[in-house]
Amino acid sequence: MKRNPKVGFIGLGIMGRPMAQNLLKAGFELIVYNRSKPPVDALVSSGATAATSPKAVAERSDVVITMVTDSEAVKELVLGQGGVLEGAHEGLTLIDMSTISPTVTRSVSDSLAAKGVSALDAPVSGGDVGARDGTLTIMVGGPQPVFDSCLPVLNAMGKKVVYMGPTGAGQLTKLANQILVACNMIGVSECLNFAKKAGLDPARVIDSLSAGAASSWSLVNLGPKIVKRDFAPGFKVKLLQKDLRYVLSTATDLNAPLPATALVHQLYKHVEEEGLGDVGTQALVTAIEQLSSKG
Amino acid sequence: MKRNPKVGFIGLGIMGRPMAQNLLKAGFELIVYNRSKPPVDALVSSGATAATSPKAVAERSDVVITMVTDSEAVKELVLGQGGVLEGAHEGLTLIDMSTISPTVTRSVSDSLAAKGVSALDAPVSGGDVGARDGTLTIMVGGPQPVFDSCLPVLNAMGKKVVYMGPTGAGQLTKLANQILVACNMIGVSECLNFAKKAGLDPARVIDSLSAGAASSWSLVNLGPKIVKRDFAPGFKVKLLQKDLRYVLSTATDLNAPLPATALVHQLYKHVEEEGLGDVGTQALVTAIEQLSSKG
Repeated sequence: MKRNPKVGFIGLGIMGRPMAQNLLKAGFELIVYNRSKPPVDALVSSGATAATSPKAVAERSDVVITMVTDSEAVKELVLGQGGVLEGAHEGLTLIDMSTISPTVTRSVSDSLAAKGVSALDAPVSGGDVGARDGTLTIMVGGPQPVFDSCLPVLNAMGKKVVYMGPTGAGQLTKLANQILVACNMIGVSECLNFAKKAGLDPARVIDSLSAGAASSWSLVNLGPKIVKRDFAPGFKVKLLQKDLRYVLSTATDLNAPLPATALVHQLYKHVEEEGLGDVGTQALVTAIEQLSSKG
Repeated sequence: MKRNPKVGFIGLGIMGRPMAQNLLKAGFELIVYNRSKPPVDALVSSGATAATSPKAVAERSDVVITMVTDSEAVKELVLGQGGVLEGAHEGLTLIDMSTISPTVTRSVSDSLAAKGVSALDAPVSGGDVGARDGTLTIMVGGPQPVFDSCLPVLNAMGKKVVYMGPTGAGQLTKLANQILVACNMIGVSECLNFAKKAGLDPARVIDSLSAGAASSWSLVNLGPKIVKRDFAPGFKVKLLQKDLRYVLSTATDLNAPLPATALVHQLYKHVEEEGLGDVGTQALVTAIEQLSSKG
C-alpha cells in the first residue's frame, strides 16, 4: 500500500476550510494557502503547514486541491505568477473542486498536461453543511486512472464520489445540478406566493405537499425558511448567478435550450439589483412577490 | 360509536375505481354509479350496489364522493338533471375529490348548502398507484366539523389527510401542488437534455444528483423514464394542462404571478399539438428536445 499523498489545499473559504479540516481528520499531511490569514492560522493550529504561494504549495504536495470562487480565480492561482504551474513536478495532480466554466477547466487542464501535471475537475454539492460533515456529493471529470488514485483523498471530503467522464464532465454535471436547483426554486417561490395570496397557511401547504409528487429538496429545506422570512445563506444568490452564467453560456455552445433556467436567471438579476446578492437563494420569492405588489 | 355511513361513489375511472375498492375493503356499504358499465360490474362483484343515476346514489347514501375529470363534469353530476342535488336529503354530505376550479367548488357548495347538503372539496395527489395502495395525500377544504365527521371515510383512501381551511382550500392546495409539479418537470427536462447534449450519461447524472440539493420526486421517479424513453402515463399531459388552466386563471384572480408555470403550460401546449396529450407528463422533455433540434 502506498503512503498517503501529501495534500495541498488552496482556498480556505466557507467550503474549503471545513473540507481541509476533514482531510486533516483523515490523517493526510496538509499544506495550505489562502489569501487572507485567519483561516490559515486555524488550519495550522489543527496540524497543517502554511505555504506562502500556490507555487510553494505545489512544490511540497503530491495532490493540490483548489476550492475558489470562479474561473478567473482558478486561472490566476494555477497559471498566474507564483501559481501552481510554477511549482509543477513529476507526479503532481491538481483537483479543482471549484465550480467553473467547463471550457476553462479544459484549457487549464491542457496547460497542466503540457508540464506533465494530471488534473481532475471535481465540483461539489451539499453546501457548507455537507463540507463540514464530509457528506458532499463530488462529481468528477478527468482520466479514470487519475480518479482512481485520488479516491482516498476525495472520500475524505464527500459521501458520494462519482466518476462522470473525461475532463470537464464533473463541471458539466455540476451545471446540470444548478439547472435543477434554479427550476425547483422558482417552483417553490411561485407556489408559496400563490398559497399566501390564496389565504392558505403556507407552512401547512409545505407539510401537505412534501410527501408526494410535488416534493423537492428545495421545498422541504428552503420552503420553511421562506415562510419564516429567513434569507440567511445557505447558498448565496450571487454564487448561483455565477453558476447560471456558466450554465447558459455552455448551453448556448451545446445548442441545449433552457427557457425556464434563463427565466430564473433573469428573475435573480432583479433580486441582485435589490441588493440581495449575498442572501440565500430562497430570496427568489421576493422577485415573485414584487411582481404581484400593487406598489 | 355511530354506525358506518353509507357511501356513494360517482366516477369509477383510473383513480375512482381503486379508491372505491379501498372503501369496500374498509367495510363501508357502497353504492356506485359510472357512465360506462364495466367498472360498475367490477365493483358490484366486490360487494357494491349499482345505482342508475347520481340522484339515486344520493338518495341511498349518507356521503357521496365524486371523482371525475373537470369542473363541467362535477357541475353536471351534482347540479344537472338526475344529479346529486335532486337526491338531496337531510344529513347528506358531498365530498368532491376531483381536481376542479376553486370558483366552481364554491358555487357548487353554495347550491348544495341551499338544500341543506354539506360539502367538502378533497382533491388528491399520489396518482393511480396511490389510489390503489390507499396512500394518497388528500387536501381538504370545507367546514371543520364536516371534515371531522368524514375522516373515517377519507382515511380509508389516503395516508395523509390534511385539513387546509374553508371551502375551496383543498382545491387551492392542489393547484399549489401542480405549480411545483410543472416547475420541477421543466427542471428535469432541461437538465436531462443538457446532460445528453453535453455527452454525459443521463442515468449517471440522475444518480449523482438525486441525493442532494437538486433532487425532487420528479427527478427520481420520472427522470429514469425519460432516459428509457418510457412516456407511459403516470399522469397524463392533458390532465396536467387542465389543472394548469385552473392554476393560471385562479392566479390571475389572486394577482399571484406565475412566470415559470405559465411558460411550462405553453411548452405543454406544443406537446399536445404533437399528439402527445395522452402520454405521461415526462413528455415535456420532447418540447425541449425539439427546440434544440436542427430540423
